[in-house]
Parts: sequence; structure tokens; C-alpha cells
Amino acid sequence: MEGTIMEEIIGFIGLGNMGAPIAANLMQAGYRLKVYNRTASKAARLVDQGASLASRPSDVAEPGGIVFTMLADDRAVEEVCFEPNSFIESLGPGGIHVSLSTIAPATARGLADHHAKHGVAYVASPVFGRPEAAAAKRLWVCMSGSSSARERAKPILNAIGQGIFDFGEDPGAANVVKLCGNFLIAAAIEALAESLVLAEKNGVALKDLAEMLGKTLFSCPVYQGYGKQIAAQQFEPTGFRLALGFKDINLALQTAALNSVPMPTASLLHDRWLAAIAKGRADMDWTAVALNVAEDAGLR
Amino acid sequence: MEGTIMEEIIGFIGLGNMGAPIAANLMQAGYRLKVYNRTASKAARLVDQGASLASRPSDVAEPGGIVFTMLADDRAVEEVCFEPNSFIESLGPGGIHVSLSTIAPATARGLADHHAKHGVAYVASPVFGRPEAAAAKRLWVCMSGSSSARERAKPILNAIGQGIFDFGEDPGAANVVKLCGNFLIAAAIEALAESLVLAEKNGVALKDLAEMLGKTLFSCPVYQGYGKQIAAQQFEPTGFRLALGFKDINLALQTAALNSVPMPTASLLHDRWLAAIAKGRADMDWTAVALNVAEDAGLR
Amino acid sequence: MEGTIMEEIIGFIGLGNMGAPIAANLMQAGYRLKVYNRTASKAARLVDQGASLASRPSDVAEPGGIVFTMLADDRAVEEVCFEPNSFIESLGPGGIHVSLSTIAPATARGLADHHAKHGVAYVASPVFGRPEAAAAKRLWVCMSGSSSARERAKPILNAIGQGIFDFGEDPGAANVVKLCGNFLIAAAIEALAESLVLAEKNGVALKDLAEMLGKTLFSCPVYQGYGKQIAAQQFEPTGFRLALGFKDINLALQTAALNSVPMPTASLLHDRWLAAIAKGRADMDWTAVALNVAEDAGLR
Amino acid sequence: MEGTIMEEIIGFIGLGNMGAPIAANLMQAGYRLKVYNRTASKAARLVDQGASLASRPSDVAEPGGIVFTMLADDRAVEEVCFEPNSFIESLGPGGIHVSLSTIAPATARGLADHHAKHGVAYVASPVFGRPEAAAAKRLWVCMSGSSSARERAKPILNAIGQGIFDFGEDPGAANVVKLCGNFLIAAAIEALAESLVLAEKNGVALKDLAEMLGKTLFSCPVYQGYGKQIAAQQFEPTGFRLALGFKDINLALQTAALNSVPMPTASLLHDRWLAAIAKGRADMDWTAVALNVAEDAGLR
Repeated sequence: MEGTIMEEIIGFIGLGNMGAPIAANLMQAGYRLKVYNRTASKAARLVDQGASLASRPSDVAEPGGIVFTMLADDRAVEEVCFEPNSFIESLGPGGIHVSLSTIAPATARGLADHHAKHGVAYVASPVFGRPEAAAAKRLWVCMSGSSSARERAKPILNAIGQGIFDFGEDPGAANVVKLCGNFLIAAAIEALAESLVLAEKNGVALKDLAEMLGKTLFSCPVYQGYGKQIAAQQFEPTGFRLALGFKDINLALQTAALNSVPMPTASLLHDRWLAAIAKGRADMDWTAVALNVAEDAGLR
Repeated sequence: MEGTIMEEIIGFIGLGNMGAPIAANLMQAGYRLKVYNRTASKAARLVDQGASLASRPSDVAEPGGIVFTMLADDRAVEEVCFEPNSFIESLGPGGIHVSLSTIAPATARGLADHHAKHGVAYVASPVFGRPEAAAAKRLWVCMSGSSSARERAKPILNAIGQGIFDFGEDPGAANVVKLCGNFLIAAAIEALAESLVLAEKNGVALKDLAEMLGKTLFSCPVYQGYGKQIAAQQFEPTGFRLALGFKDINLALQTAALNSVPMPTASLLHDRWLAAIAKGRADMDWTAVALNVAEDAGLR
Repeated sequence: MEGTIMEEIIGFIGLGNMGAPIAANLMQAGYRLKVYNRTASKAARLVDQGASLASRPSDVAEPGGIVFTMLADDRAVEEVCFEPNSFIESLGPGGIHVSLSTIAPATARGLADHHAKHGVAYVASPVFGRPEAAAAKRLWVCMSGSSSARERAKPILNAIGQGIFDFGEDPGAANVVKLCGNFLIAAAIEALAESLVLAEKNGVALKDLAEMLGKTLFSCPVYQGYGKQIAAQQFEPTGFRLALGFKDINLALQTAALNSVPMPTASLLHDRWLAAIAKGRADMDWTAVALNVAEDAGLR
Repeated sequence: MEGTIMEEIIGFIGLGNMGAPIAANLMQAGYRLKVYNRTASKAARLVDQGASLASRPSDVAEPGGIVFTMLADDRAVEEVCFEPNSFIESLGPGGIHVSLSTIAPATARGLADHHAKHGVAYVASPVFGRPEAAAAKRLWVCMSGSSSARERAKPILNAIGQGIFDFGEDPGAANVVKLCGNFLIAAAIEALAESLVLAEKNGVALKDLAEMLGKTLFSCPVYQGYGKQIAAQQFEPTGFRLALGFKDINLALQTAALNSVPMPTASLLHDRWLAAIAKGRADMDWTAVALNVAEDAGLR
């Protein structure tokens, strides 16, 4: 019964740029939320809308319930899961931890093993999309983990995105997919930047070139959006922080090293993103790596 | 009057995989064709359809007329243009050479200078699309060159593709754009291959991953088509010869060297394509470079 | 007085391929040794020669004394230093920890901070040289750490090598130098391998080429020794395990990332070494990375 | 009889930075010289010393004699050999062309084929060393070509260097070796630059590091000289022009492409050298590529 589901209280830890709009959408879909954020003030708006505020992470959990986390990185997720009297222990048997963060597959697998000892299922659910997409319920959700937990999480995740892609039992699988996706975007940004500088030095109108690409071979969001930005050399406002992109490229490289998969394109991206950080661009949009190409070509 | 245009005789040199269907489409649009191919037998079908066959390249040209060429590489185009009593001389003042081949921008500019001495205009019109797309009039045409010649060529080029993108006066511009496009496709193939091997080693279902990418971030022909092929490790039949891809990557690198534009991604692609050739894959589809990634990861 | 020094008892933890011959040389120089190794049997020979055997790491230390460690990696060094009742606590005020391992500069700095709380000085002393060089007292010793501790350690270190290079106060400095050195050797191996395959495909006698290089431009141990090995395609016996080389390249890359220093050559080496590991060559000599070059060129 | 040899007149074409001191050494060894240089004034000093000056390249040659060339690049050598009434035709049967330039092996092989039609033997003799080394008779000479011609050229070449390395019959072999050597030097420069910036960011005294390397693992001219220069960030005066280094890296890459040998280190060097040229450093010493590393790390 849908009505029954709506009674369910969902815990939510992490109300940053991405977490806050996702949590809001869960409430709008009818779920009751118990939220926690290190900086409690960021929860104010959700509390106004009816969420209850917990003073400790473990307080968001109900025995056998569901807790979502949207935290900055592997360490942040591990800290909140491994602390004494953690929310995992509060969840206990039958509980589910839906982890939305982009983290290493190895971390996800380690968490799943840890949770299992407490009878809790780990569902990896990293999402594609920027804060605006999160607000507009237009995220793409990748999902993996134990079968019954995925079944229980799916209808809830439907409330935050435009589509769910299920990658099966391995709790690390969805994060592998997420890292592949971000790697592919980063590779496209670098390649676009290189081709646009080549075109620029030949006097080609960059706007026309980007438009042509976006209407023909590369008629998809990544090339249309980033092509336009790079052609216009417009690296503000920051849609996705360059430093976060570097984190994800490194997660891909580390995972690939564990799996003995040389990824020379990822190594190149590592060097390019690192150069951009060295030049003081960590907080710019990650398309600002395009500046490296121009500078190496003697421009700007 | 359309009727008048239809009276115009177009010369066409080069009836290979791409040239033949393009020529056929011109005839179907009502143009009369005079064709030349080194191996005359390849012209048989067009002659059946009403084309007249020339025994020498220069015989396809009428004074002040239009000649299309679709030849293998820079050298082939230069040879037919620079030979004594060439078709350029036959065209003479008011004539137009529409060059469909993917060649270096520097070569195109050199040809334009050469042609100008004979009063002939050079219109660069490299096309995106495989033979099937050529047959289906679904090519994308990039165009550049002198303004009046472009105006005269446009309605004719409309008969061979689904869209024309005009990049202005510089006879090299359209080829710069074409090289950028092929470089971007090659970069996407390499990045896809790397990410799919990473996924494979993690037990992710490659078909599902490729589908997800093609439905979300990368919902465009390049990623949909190549993603599917690479996920299925299906490198036959040959849509675009790996050796031709190598040629185009090198044209991009050579142009970039002339322009002092370091393109590390292109350098990486050069090495990958060269390895594939060294391993005996020159005649396979260019997605077969994906095998390098798998082999470097200890697979296959 | 030299006699006085000789009375000093030195603790030594880690009696592997490198540690054992170094410890033997210390004894030969007149120092009394108290040794510990996880696999006690490896200490037998040293005990025969007069060393006393400790059953726990902390037992090798005397208050205010000196303890050498030669352990596999960062984790091994940290474990033995951070365990409860560690040898650091046994050393106490005035004690010195001379760490011979190749570890990250950041790890070295962290250890120095930790030790300082117990009044112990950390002296980084990574060494260049293979086991044979260690046995022959022909190691090159890099050193850094607090000034007074370095003064006290120097005469002892003179007993194990042919020269000491002092890099000052920063406990991380000597390890930075060591990582630079190993990175440079790895880069030379890769470049040699590439040039030798180019020569091979041109029918040049590789032995002659390697000899010429070693007599002229590159008349130094690295190029002479590795040039000869690679020219002869002789990757056994294992002088330095390929997997250990990968560890060191990664330490360089991780340190460089912390310092925002893009090192594209190191990234390339990472990919090459990883491919060699994926192909099952982790236990071969690290010159076996040369096989990648040959394989990518369609040879072997 | 030595006296007889001394009677021999040697032709010499190309009196630049390298050619002039080499020619001077030949005269000092007792050979009579007939010289040609496009800018005749550069021959003044040699003429003062007794050389006779030719007004055309072909005038330096005597039937069955020997002509040395030291020219800028492949094109320059081909031009002087392929022009009508060239010095090759003047040499005729029994003549020898000793070519000192660094050119592509393929060019050398083409020249040998061409010369053979006129009964002239081609001896490739590229040299390692800067102008100072040429003046001091300290060049290293690599040699290949037909056996009898090499025998005749050897005693003459002994007069210009400190050692000759013979690579057999293939006229391209000596140039392959020369390209390998210059590639290895360039790779060492890049690796040194990367390691020194890593050290700099860690506060290591670069002079000390470079000295240590030059005294231990890398006790050879390339690392000692370039290590010192890069540590001191001293890129003037120009020992070897950066643009010439780029030429040689490209010759290696082109040769490798013909041979299907992927050389990722060479590709990286191509990009680095090209960036340096784009930044306006073509005329600086080629160690100035080190600036790229510093700039990518946010320094300078």
C-alpha cells in the first residue's frame, strides 16, 4: 500500500549542495524525514517544511529503517559509519543504508561487509547531475547492492531522479559506473579543449564549431553544455568544482590500479587537473582545465 | 529556376566507398554527371544510371564548371590537381573545385592558392558520416572557401547530406573542423575502451553500462554506436578502417605542430592507433583500438 | 674515542634482502647488534656472528640508544612505530630511529612528529643500491633529520655505504631524494626500452648500441647495467622486483599530488609498470617493463 | 702510406657551427680541403688556413673523391644531392659522400639508393657533441654504410672525434642510433626537470640533489651537465637550440611511425618541446623545457 510507505520515516545525513535538494524532493514525495547535518543551520529550510532535526547522526535511524547519506568523500562516509554507536547500529537488522556519495568501489564493498555484521544492507546509489538537476528531480541514479534492499529503495529513489539504472548485487558496481561516467566527462572536456584551441589558432569561429558538434556527432548534454562553455571561455559560475573532479579522477585511477587496468587517458587527466589546481583553479568549474591547453599553446 | 540548375554538368573524380554513393545522390537530385575513377569498372553502376565516363580526370571538367573530388588523401588530391593539363586548367576562370576529402588544412590552403592562379575557386567540403550515411543522404557537410563559390556549391551539397555547416572564407577552416571532429571521436573511443575494461574487471555488465551512458550523459550517435560495439567487443565489419583513423589523427597532430598547439590526447591516440597497426589491425574497424586496453590489463 | 663508540649496542629491525647484509656490515665494523625479524630464522646467521636476538621489536631498543629499521613499506614502518609499547617508547629521550626504508616523505614527517613526543629523533636514511651493493658496503646513503641525531648517525652509516649525502633538517627530504632517484632510474629504463625497440626494428645490433651509449653520453651505472640487460632481453634474475618499482613510482606520484606537481613522465611509468603487473610480471626484474614496448610494436 | 692519404683533397659542404670546426680539424690533420658554404663569408677563416673555396657545391668534388656534408636538415641534404649537376655527379664512380647531419634514416637510405646510380657510396656519420666538442676533436662519431667506403672514411673521421662506432652496412643505421641518442638525452632532461620541481617544492637544495645524482647513479656527462643547468635554472647560453631538439624528437617519432613502434615517452617530449616553442623559447637552450614543469606546478 502506498499509504503505508508514506508513513515510513527516512533518515538523511548530509545536507550540502546535493543533499539538501534531494532531501526536499523526498519530503515532497510524501516521506517523513529525520535529518542530520554537521552544520545544523543548513537544515533550517527542511525543518520549516516539516523535517525533524537530529542532534547526532545515529538519531536519524529507526530500527529496521532506511538512512540516506550524501557526504563529501570516502573518509566522511566511513567516519559516520564506523563511529561508536553509529547510525548503522541504530538501524540494526533489516535496516538499509542508501549511500548517494561518489566513493571508491572498494570503500563501498568494505562498508557493505561492515554493515552486514549489524544486519544492515548497503545500497550504493551514486547519482549523475548537478545541484540544479537534483532540485528538478532530474538526477540519473545508479544502483547496486543486495537484491531485497534494492527493491525496497527503488520506489524511494524514483522520487529524486528521472531514471534508475540497476547494476546488480555487487555493492561496488554502482560506484564503478559512476567513476566511469565522471571519467568519460572529464576526458570529453580535455578533448574538447584541445580541439577548440586547435580551431582557435586556425581562426575558426569556436561558437560555430561547438554548435556544429552539438547538433551532429555529439548531440548530447555533455558536449553541448561543456562545448559551449569552453568555446566561450566561461568558467564561472562553478557547476562542479575542479577539485572534486580531481578527486573522482583519482578514485578511478586508484580503482584501476587495484584492478591492474592501465588507463592512460585517466593519467593524462590527473596531470591536467593537478596543473589547474597548482595554478590556483581548484574552486573554479572543472571546465577551467581548458586553460591549460591554451597556456601550453602560448595563448592567454 | 531549378530547371536551369539541373542542366549543369558536374564533374566527379573518385568513386570509392564514399564517392560512389555521393555521386549517385547528385544524379538522383537531377544533376548530370561526368565521372572519372582510376579503376574505371567502379563507375559502371553510375554509367548505367546515366553518368558519362571520362578517360582522364581533366575530361570531367567544363570551362567555368564544377568538379567534385573524393580521394584517399592529401597526396592523391595534389596529384590530380598539379598534373600537367589538370582538370583545374580545364575548369579555368569561374570554375569551382569542391573537395570532399579529409586532408590537412595546409594542403587545402595550398590548393586554393594554386587554383587561384587559374581563376578556379577551391571549396573545402569534408563530410562526416560512413558509406551507409552517404548512401542515405545523411552526411554532415562542413564547408569553407570563397564566398561566391560557396553560394554556388551549397544547393548542390544539399543533395548529399542532411545539413551544411559553413565556416567562412578560409579554405583550410572546414578541414580543421573535420580533423577536430575525427579527433574527438577517436578520443571518445579510447576513453570508452578504458572505462569499459575498468568496468569489466569489476564484473559490471558492459551492455548495461553502455546503454546507461547512451541514454543519459552521452545520448548521441558516437557514444551510442561505439559504446555498443566496444561493450560487445565487435570490431567487424569495418565501418571506418583503423589505418584511416591513424591518418586523420596524424593530420591533426601535424596541423597542431604547425600551429604550436600541444595536444596530449592526440599524442596518446597516435600511440594507441600505432600499437593497433603494429599488432596487425590496420584493416579492422577503428574501435579495435579497444583491444589495446584489454591487453594492457592482462585480458584476452 | 672510537673504542667507546664500538661499545654502543645498535638495535636492528628488518632482516630481509637489504637489512641482513647491512646489519652484517654494522657488526663487521665493530658494533654490537640486537636484532629482530618477524621470521626469526632469517636472523640465524647474524646470531652466529654474535648478534643477540630479540623476541619483540621493542626489545632491540636501549634507553637513549639507536635503532635501525629496514622494512618493506610505509605501513610496516608505521605499524612497528605506532604499536603499544613500541621500540620508540623503549628508546625514549635521547634515542634515535634511523629509518632506511624507501617511504613517502609525508610518512617520514609524520613519524618524526610522533617520535618527538617521546623525545626520539627520526633520521631518514634511505639507500641506493641492490642487495649485492649492500653486502659490498657500496650503498649510497641519503640522510636528513635533526642535526644532532644526524651527527651521531653518520659514523655508523659510514660503515654500510660508500658515501653519505646530507639533505638537512627536514625528515622528509632524504625520502624525496630517494623517490627522485628511483623515478629517474625508471624513466631511463622506459626510454632505453623505447629506443632499443626502434633500433631493433631497424636492424641495429642492440648490444653495440647499448655499449656505445654506455661508453659515451651515458657512461654511468644505470645506463650501462640496464642498457645491457634490456638489449639482451634478460629480465632474470630479479635485481629489483617490478612490483617494488611500482610502489616507488606511486610514492613519487602521491607526493607530487600533495605538492601539486604534475609529473607526466611518472604518470606514463605508472601505466607501464601497471601493465607489466597485469601481464603477470610483478616478480620479475623491473627492466621487464621493456616487454611492453616490444609488445606494443607487435614483437614477441 | 700516410703521406699518400694526406695528398687527398676532401670536399666539404656546410660550414655552420658544427661544420666549420670539423673542417678545421680535417685540415689540421693534414687533409687539403675544398669548401663550399651558401654564405661564403663563413669560409674566410678556413681559406686563410689554406682551404680553397668553391663557388658551387659541385665544385668541391673530384672524380672518385670524398665529400663531407654538414647541413641543417633532411631537406638541405636532399637539395644539394638532387640538384642538376650535383656534387654526386661530379664525384661519380668510386666517390664517397660522408654525411654528418642528423637526418631521418629513411632519408639516408633514399640518398644511398640515389647515389648508387652514380656509383657513389653513402656513408652516414652523424656525430654526438656540441660545437665546443667539435672544436676540441671530442665528437663521438656513429657510422654506417657500405663496407669499403667505411674503411676509406674511418681514418679521416678519426681526425674529428674521440671515437668511432660502426653500425654496419645499412646506410640508415647510424642515423637511427643518433636519433636514439638524442631522444634519450631529451627524455633525461624532462625527467630531471620533473624530479627537480618535486624536490624544490619539498625544500630540497637542488644543487645538492643534482650533485648527488651526478656522483652516484648518473655519473655521466648528460646528467651532470644538464642536472646542474636545470638545478640552477640557467638556460643561456644556448648549447643546443630547443627548436633543433624538437626537429630530432620528430624525426624519431616519424621513424618510429614508419616502423610501427609506439614511443609514448617521445610523444610526451613532442608535446613538451612544442609547448616551449609556443611560449617563445625556440632559440633558448633545450633545457628550457624544464620551465614547463615549473609552470604546470604553479611556479614562476
